[in-house]
Amino acid sequence: MKKAVVLLSGGLDSTTSLYWAKSKGYQTFVLIFDYGQRHKKEIGSAIKIARKTKSFYLQVKFSLPWKGSALLDKSLKLPKKRKLEKMISSGIPSTYVPARNTIFLSFALSYADAIQADAIVIGANAIDYSGYPDCRPQYLNAMEKAALLGTKIGTEGKKFKILAPLVKMSKAKIIQLGLKLKVPYELTWSCYQGGRSPCKECDSCILRAKGFKEAGALDPF
Amino acid sequence: MKKAVVLLSGGLDSTTSLYWAKSKGYQTFVLIFDYGQRHKKEIGSAIKIARKTKSFYLQVKFSLPWKGSALLDKSLKLPKKRKLEKMISSGIPSTYVPARNTIFLSFALSYADAIQADAIVIGANAIDYSGYPDCRPQYLNAMEKAALLGTKIGTEGKKFKILAPLVKMSKAKIIQLGLKLKVPYELTWSCYQGGRSPCKECDSCILRAKGFKEAGALDPF
Repeated sequence: MKKAVVLLSGGLDSTTSLYWAKSKGYQTFVLIFDYGQRHKKEIGSAIKIARKTKSFYLQVKFSLPWKGSALLDKSLKLPKKRKLEKMISSGIPSTYVPARNTIFLSFALSYADAIQADAIVIGANAIDYSGYPDCRPQYLNAMEKAALLGTKIGTEGKKFKILAPLVKMSKAKIIQLGLKLKVPYELTWSCYQGGRSPCKECDSCILRAKGFKEAGALDPF
Repeated sequence: MKKAVVLLSGGLDSTTSLYWAKSKGYQTFVLIFDYGQRHKKEIGSAIKIARKTKSFYLQVKFSLPWKGSALLDKSLKLPKKRKLEKMISSGIPSTYVPARNTIFLSFALSYADAIQADAIVIGANAIDYSGYPDCRPQYLNAMEKAALLGTKIGTEGKKFKILAPLVKMSKAKIIQLGLKLKVPYELTWSCYQGGRSPCKECDSCILRAKGFKEAGALDPF
């Protein structure tokens, strides 16, 4: 059976990617990160989802002493009530965590190298997104090249891939795919605030609501 | 003043790289990693060296639950008394930590992105080395490309570099450079065993001894 290391935040995109990987026949090895995120609550969602899919899962914990993001520093305010056009046109937002996907992918790569996996699966998306540079296909392609050169599996000729199945889909398309794959969206957590219930105002809540609306579906959360 | 994030293990190469960065006029921001290495002792050396050079320094702690390396798993034996030709010809050794430099560089990149640094400096070497794939220039070049695409500084057009000043030098050349830069080699720690004194048998001890011998210098440790 092919093995995939799947990055799982507990949000909508990464959960859909996990179900996608399972539908493609991968044995799934899930990585969940505790990196001091404001919405630590997503970790609980990720664990439930990993268990539901009978994935083997591991948690990796680290912190970034330099913070540099409103997702790590509660004294900074989150952007509120922004439209998608505003998200894209205003450049990289304060919720950007410096090089987060590079850190996540580097741990996934280490795990993949240790277990001789065939792929890493990441839920990155560059259509309905906040404008993070490390979610774009050109970045992911460059990381795959570095990954092949910097690992034992790559050097020994394994055809190893970084797969981002959602990277060019709209949020609505992602949700439609997820509904077909029976993704339990009621278990996922998207809100950056990480409160008792979603704030409905942060970029992540807004993108989620837009997605369900355009998909013609109801958010079961 | 130009800023450089410098990866410092406390060993000979990274310490020489730190002194090189200072000689090139960089303000140095040192990163020291505690990742469950067998030779944790090197962390003490790194801290002393960071202080001696008046660098600002931070420690990052993480662990790799999958281990996959004799440097992380004390139940595995370290290779002993190998000649350099043997190190190179036997392929990637058991001391290889899966994707370690990718993890180190990703944290350095996050830090560099947060403080708008001009460079990351890494002591990687691909001449007198154990055959780790993530020490080769082609890997480092690929990581630099990914770094430019996946960060705020890169996206915003900063001419950001990953510098590996020692990558094509023999160990003897590195030591000669270091002696010119007044590197306090008596403070550095290379041995993988991490005991009270260097074992003189592991790959790292052997490369160090070979370097000093060929440089015509005495190891002051």
